[in-house]
Amino acid sequence: MSGASIAPNESPTGITLLQQLAQRVLAFDKRELTKKSVAQAKACLIDTLGVTLAGLPEPCTQILLKTPGVAASRGPALIFGTARRTSALDAALVNGTASHALDFDDFSGVMGGHHSVPLVSALIALAEERGGTGEDIIAAYVIGVEVEIRFARAVNFHHYDKGWHPTATLGVFGAAAAACHLLKLDPARTTMALCIAASLASGLKANFGTMTKPLHIGQCGRNGLLAALLAEGGFDAATDVLEHAQGFLNVFNGPDMFDAEKLFENWGAPWEIEASSVALKQFPCCGSTHPAINMALALRREEKIEVADIAGIAVMPHGRRLRHTNTPHPQSSLEAKFSVQYVVARALHGGILRLKHFEGDAHADPEIRRLLDLTTASPHPDMADDAQEQWGAEVIVTLNDGRKLSRRVDNLVGRGGDNPMDAGEMWDKFSDCAARGLPREQVAPLFERLETFEKITDVAHLTRLLEVSELYRAPARKIVFAPRGVQEAPETNWVP
Amino acid sequence: MSGASIAPNESPTGITLLQQLAQRVLAFDKRELTKKSVAQAKACLIDTLGVTLAGLPEPCTQILLKTPGVAASRGPALIFGTARRTSALDAALVNGTASHALDFDDFSGVMGGHHSVPLVSALIALAEERGGTGEDIIAAYVIGVEVEIRFARAVNFHHYDKGWHPTATLGVFGAAAAACHLLKLDPARTTMALCIAASLASGLKANFGTMTKPLHIGQCGRNGLLAALLAEGGFDAATDVLEHAQGFLNVFNGPDMFDAEKLFENWGAPWEIEASSVALKQFPCCGSTHPAINMALALRREEKIEVADIAGIAVMPHGRRLRHTNTPHPQSSLEAKFSVQYVVARALHGGILRLKHFEGDAHADPEIRRLLDLTTASPHPDMADDAQEQWGAEVIVTLNDGRKLSRRVDNLVGRGGDNPMDAGEMWDKFSDCAARGLPREQVAPLFERLETFEKITDVAHLTRLLEVSELYRAPARKIVFAPRGVQEAPETNWVP
Repeated sequence: MSGASIAPNESPTGITLLQQLAQRVLAFDKRELTKKSVAQAKACLIDTLGVTLAGLPEPCTQILLKTPGVAASRGPALIFGTARRTSALDAALVNGTASHALDFDDFSGVMGGHHSVPLVSALIALAEERGGTGEDIIAAYVIGVEVEIRFARAVNFHHYDKGWHPTATLGVFGAAAAACHLLKLDPARTTMALCIAASLASGLKANFGTMTKPLHIGQCGRNGLLAALLAEGGFDAATDVLEHAQGFLNVFNGPDMFDAEKLFENWGAPWEIEASSVALKQFPCCGSTHPAINMALALRREEKIEVADIAGIAVMPHGRRLRHTNTPHPQSSLEAKFSVQYVVARALHGGILRLKHFEGDAHADPEIRRLLDLTTASPHPDMADDAQEQWGAEVIVTLNDGRKLSRRVDNLVGRGGDNPMDAGEMWDKFSDCAARGLPREQVAPLFERLETFEKITDVAHLTRLLEVSELYRAPARKIVFAPRGVQEAPETNWVP
Repeated sequence: MSGASIAPNESPTGITLLQQLAQRVLAFDKRELTKKSVAQAKACLIDTLGVTLAGLPEPCTQILLKTPGVAASRGPALIFGTARRTSALDAALVNGTASHALDFDDFSGVMGGHHSVPLVSALIALAEERGGTGEDIIAAYVIGVEVEIRFARAVNFHHYDKGWHPTATLGVFGAAAAACHLLKLDPARTTMALCIAASLASGLKANFGTMTKPLHIGQCGRNGLLAALLAEGGFDAATDVLEHAQGFLNVFNGPDMFDAEKLFENWGAPWEIEASSVALKQFPCCGSTHPAINMALALRREEKIEVADIAGIAVMPHGRRLRHTNTPHPQSSLEAKFSVQYVVARALHGGILRLKHFEGDAHADPEIRRLLDLTTASPHPDMADDAQEQWGAEVIVTLNDGRKLSRRVDNLVGRGGDNPMDAGEMWDKFSDCAARGLPREQVAPLFERLETFEKITDVAHLTRLLEVSELYRAPARKIVFAPRGVQEAPETNWVP
């Protein structure tokens, strides 16, 4: 059955929601991939592999790897940044956890969560076990994202506000769908995989700010993959588990607190991965500070500002962005991540923000302290709290000669969609991240290979570049927790 | 800290619910085990191992065992009824799924679910990996049951009615607690294990009647154990994940739809395992038919009724028990499981009910068909729908000479507590079950060893008896599904 044979909003009689969804998942052919969806998928895949390598030395990943029975079986699937190979299930668990360890991965505003991490580790591991080209993985990834975000349209933001962690509770369906697509299962088995996944969905926002948050992602990738593999073997589940009175929608969201029609409305027109609400995090700090950082970087670059010439810095983000990032003198790495003053000073000082700027004593750097003493922050007077666009910022620098230079943006939710990072910016982030999990000499060859992801004829050609001899040891580093208050932002204030 | 130092209802200031629970779990010492709790625990352990062996040849278990990456690592923990040894995590997954495959395992009316299956496979596997005596396992089991049923007191029956599968969603806390007790973790790590478990809780009732229902149990045992092992390694989670606004109680049940005080009320006085609401399923068919079966068996045994002398059979269960078991002429094995007429005829005919009576063409046996033609069923006129006791039945047999013989019971919810099976009845069920997963000659030695479970000095002495040489192959058999309608019985009508 081809994609075209199911009209948007058509609801075939007598078949359940997940049967319909399974048909659409399988009908999706890689020939339907638009240029934009491939470009966006590639950016997300490159970015996700980078942050996964950065997450390898984090305690959550390291503890998981030392847990008896985890990644203990020999298999074809690589734990990235090591020479250890195990089952696809366990590689999905470990790499998936690593990929979200720093909360530096891409996100979708509609999902209220991170769309790539539930899929990427599971798909690459599965491709290693069962074969797959770069294009196969991209196609499976695009349809996996479609499923996750379609679910989000049906259940958000009530789902998110209630306390579910959508990256995990919706990601498990995306992972199952993506795996079925890669495995080319038939519609009946794909339906079963999605139905099994419903019973494996879990993850509470109360555990945000702890190692259990990234664990949610490892579990959801593993569980989605398990659902697909069980379905392939003939395992069954209830086909109406989504709409059933005691099924996913009613139990997770509550009666009348969802809109199932949104699952299929305007299907594929365009694909969700193409949306401007899908974005990458360019900098390793709170997403709410990113618009101001971008303005500071633009000022420094375009006006050639020298630090010695700065007499004053005024930062004016949208009020909703400032509330949890108004930290004039951060006393820890964690506070630095949530200080719009610190990150703007860093941007003006060095023209770049790196992971190391949020580690150790970086927040106490005397040169930055001096700039912080010259900095004020206040909500932008032109940006109303209830405006539709809530991701604006203006930065004004006063020079010693009295001149005032400024840059302003009215809405900039991450990077991607209509405002992608360029190759240089991608490399800046990727190289910073990947060097946490790979020897430096492996980073550039990997990036180059990823730039033509769609040309990879065998996933093994990729994972060979992610393998590290046992002699290399990634440096251990303490995980940085996000503060609870920030993570519980209200619905209109979802903070990636 | 000893159990006595925490008074019932005491709520130490400044510590969270799961911190309190962790203290109580660890304070529980095997010297506190009462004679009754040991006896009941042993009955449950024996029964659970029997039904686990019976579940081995079921398709859900067999498909799981063939799934790539499942039980693929070498380790110390046995897949019961095989020679395959793997990690404790994967043994908990596979044996846990097998243990619930036939829905023939013990249950708790308060839990609205099955209290043993989340614990037993995980505990035995963990003891194999890390050591443990029979007494250690019993103590960990008793405290695991305590945690599960305490949770149920706090959240049921709203939790159950909403659509959660409490055996899994509450069992995961029991499994984590039991594993921590066996591992002798400290209070901080035990707290973390319980908090991690909250984020792994899953399982929807909409998937009842499919292979995914027993999978819930395998997953919950594995997840509870994973939570304990991660916590042991230093993994963290939010200590207030239970009472947090976006935590387990509010997210799973909803605000004001739980009573957290019930977690600790009258703690240990007595232990939950001693309650009469904890019961075993004596016969391999719907629990609602059991009171009538017991009356038929008593009639046959005590009145020495011969089948040839029977002129008529009147079955009168409580109306709530009859509604979903009123099947005068079952056309399949599945219908036979839900036919009070069939099971009473079988009981009068052979004096026993075995698994084979619900397989193949057993339901079409001409001798049983003849008895069914003489059988009527109607709700008992003395047993009101809204009576407190809803598990009564009367069976009246009319003989060819005109005599009417009858037996009646007013409430009989399973067996156990105040109405335990005797050793002969335990053996009848165990031998029937265990022979599905073990060669016949291994069944009696295993049962004998289990009868002195508390004397086992090393769990390996037990599991050696559960191991089967690769040459032996358990017969494959089709799984029998319970019909959806029955599984969705309303709250006061929970059907084990």
